[in-house]
Amino acid sequence: MKIESIDLFYFALPKVRDIADGSQDSFVVRVRSDTGLEGFGESDSSPLVAFACYCTPTSHSNIVPLQQILAGQTVDSPDDIRRIYDHARRRALDMAHLPHAYAAADIALWDLLGKHLDQPIYRLLGYDRQHAKRAYGSYLFGDTPDETRDRAAVAVRDGFTAVKFGWGPMGKVDEEFDIDLVRQARAGLGGDVALMVDAGTPWQYDDDTALQRARGFEPFGVTWLEEPLAPDAVAAYGRLSSASPIPVAAGEGCDTVRAAEDLLEHGGVHFLQIDSGRIGGITPTMHTVRLAAQHGATFVNHTFKSHILLAAMMHTFAGEQQASWLEYCGSGSPLIEAMVDTPIKVDSAGFVSLPEGPGLGIKVNLRRAGEFARHIDIRIDRKSIGTTADP
Amino acid sequence: MKIESIDLFYFALPKVRDIADGSQDSFVVRVRSDTGLEGFGESDSSPLVAFACYCTPTSHSNIVPLQQILAGQTVDSPDDIRRIYDHARRRALDMAHLPHAYAAADIALWDLLGKHLDQPIYRLLGYDRQHAKRAYGSYLFGDTPDETRDRAAVAVRDGFTAVKFGWGPMGKVDEEFDIDLVRQARAGLGGDVALMVDAGTPWQYDDDTALQRARGFEPFGVTWLEEPLAPDAVAAYGRLSSASPIPVAAGEGCDTVRAAEDLLEHGGVHFLQIDSGRIGGITPTMHTVRLAAQHGATFVNHTFKSHILLAAMMHTFAGEQQASWLEYCGSGSPLIEAMVDTPIKVDSAGFVSLPEGPGLGIKVNLRRAGEFARHIDIRIDRKSIGTTADP
Repeated sequence: MKIESIDLFYFALPKVRDIADGSQDSFVVRVRSDTGLEGFGESDSSPLVAFACYCTPTSHSNIVPLQQILAGQTVDSPDDIRRIYDHARRRALDMAHLPHAYAAADIALWDLLGKHLDQPIYRLLGYDRQHAKRAYGSYLFGDTPDETRDRAAVAVRDGFTAVKFGWGPMGKVDEEFDIDLVRQARAGLGGDVALMVDAGTPWQYDDDTALQRARGFEPFGVTWLEEPLAPDAVAAYGRLSSASPIPVAAGEGCDTVRAAEDLLEHGGVHFLQIDSGRIGGITPTMHTVRLAAQHGATFVNHTFKSHILLAAMMHTFAGEQQASWLEYCGSGSPLIEAMVDTPIKVDSAGFVSLPEGPGLGIKVNLRRAGEFARHIDIRIDRKSIGTTADP
Repeated sequence: MKIESIDLFYFALPKVRDIADGSQDSFVVRVRSDTGLEGFGESDSSPLVAFACYCTPTSHSNIVPLQQILAGQTVDSPDDIRRIYDHARRRALDMAHLPHAYAAADIALWDLLGKHLDQPIYRLLGYDRQHAKRAYGSYLFGDTPDETRDRAAVAVRDGFTAVKFGWGPMGKVDEEFDIDLVRQARAGLGGDVALMVDAGTPWQYDDDTALQRARGFEPFGVTWLEEPLAPDAVAAYGRLSSASPIPVAAGEGCDTVRAAEDLLEHGGVHFLQIDSGRIGGITPTMHTVRLAAQHGATFVNHTFKSHILLAAMMHTFAGEQQASWLEYCGSGSPLIEAMVDTPIKVDSAGFVSLPEGPGLGIKVNLRRAGEFARHIDIRIDRKSIGTTADP
């Protein structure tokens, strides 16, 4: 197949709130080939900044617009997608935003190829079968411990057997408050539901405080403590990981495979949480899945976008039996609900499987999501150099 | 002082060529305070992508536009600039392009503060005095070995006592051709002029080939071999650095302080080449200057933009006596020449000093650079959300 068009879309809720909820907007890429097939992908990025990477004027031979890099490429095999990825990394070598921007295109190419070859992506990636994942509902902490307890009770009613709370006021008041947030989360969940804590990088480079919190949280049965430190605080992660009574999780801030490898080798994290929508798509994510296994860490997805990205992430570790957790965004964003006709559901036992259709296995409904579409038009010297497509 | 306005500028040559010459465009930020002072900074970035980071709609609490992050901030001391930097890193935590985009603002804040306190930036950074640097002219390889020899002769006539050749056909033909490029560079320079080779990442993750080339180049007296590998090929750099007969240089691809630390600790590079216009400005660059010294490596600037960025970089290691090399772009871009009224010149002995004026110490001439100004207007749903300023 030859790529014939690359269409870009920007969706957002009418009112975006200043909270750590990534499900409020979305950057989607549609790739169409000369066979009439189309593939979809999604980035976890500022949609405008990602869009700009596709239409930016050339700065020099290492900053070339992604539209130009992708246009006319041939895609008949997984190796073609890897070749295009390598090509993009060279031609946009000096574009720091490349992994965030390119992610949606890479996923769209895998979706397209899967449809072309009539295979789910996970098979193209070399897995014989998929293993259902245990979903943990991902929620923000309430503004108070009491509110957190109420949210926890709702999450249990929604059928989750595992729940993660993150961000919100964690790390912003004092130790007693932090511990009370976790205590009330546990109270709301009851004893049988797994509880993860996502601190939201509050202690930055201070692993002493992070360790103190880990000790304070331990009595409440916490599966992991996520992102207590800044994404690049690798040495501090190394000290924390070896001393913490709770396993340590991190990785969503990895924009490169090397950053993930660094976090495994020198940060010693027990759970590696990669977002395909940030690291550059399915292609580089596969390297991190293998690296996690090599380092004895458990791979987990980070996903706070629509089911386009959730499906993409599931394919990357579908066949890894020991990587059994799945982050499942519990925000209930109407944008997420509108994006696909075939949402990926949590079953009555709290598990999630991929649909077995070709490509991503989901049916994107841009027309329905169109309710949330926003139109970008970038003009240079009064001439339009790029616009979003109509959904 | 309070920040009153942040103005953004995009300059480009009328015809941008598809070669590895970063001096063909520029993203400039001007910050004005309520005292009537102004500061300037420059990024090494796609200007459009950097611009988009300043005016992007908020995605959530970790993707907030840089205009909003900077507006109304108070700047009275170096610690204020560091505080604003930390604030930006949290509020734009999930924006991969942040370091490239923010760099120009950070530099502008230091320029502004230096003018406010009537001090050159290097004094605000804690240096008592500056040490003149030995300039090496930075050129692209010619398309052939013969052309490279001719360029080398020109560089010597231009007064450089050290010359670096980079990119072009290096690594794209075969071993014999690569070695002949270096042989002819040396022939054109004569025996007394220092020669650096910037391979331009051709061997990616293949340190065996890179080592073979280092051995092939050694007879021609090469001061360092730069970027033979991909920026994130840290393990391969580690193997190469310990075996190479020529010192190894890398680092321009570091978008985070941790990436630089990783390259020093595990890549073992002998020269660390940081670009303040990519890593986020002067503030994070200072960490890398200290890290290089701690690891026994020599800090060198990477600069292929105007003298705004050249001056900013010089301040970061002005007082480091043992870091004595300075990259000085030899491309002769008319845009670079137009940008400042007080270009930083190479003296007759081949050395460069910073002017002793306050702030950056240079006089930016936006009106003259205005010949190359391009106008960006980003519209969302037909409404303009950001435009470049008139120079």
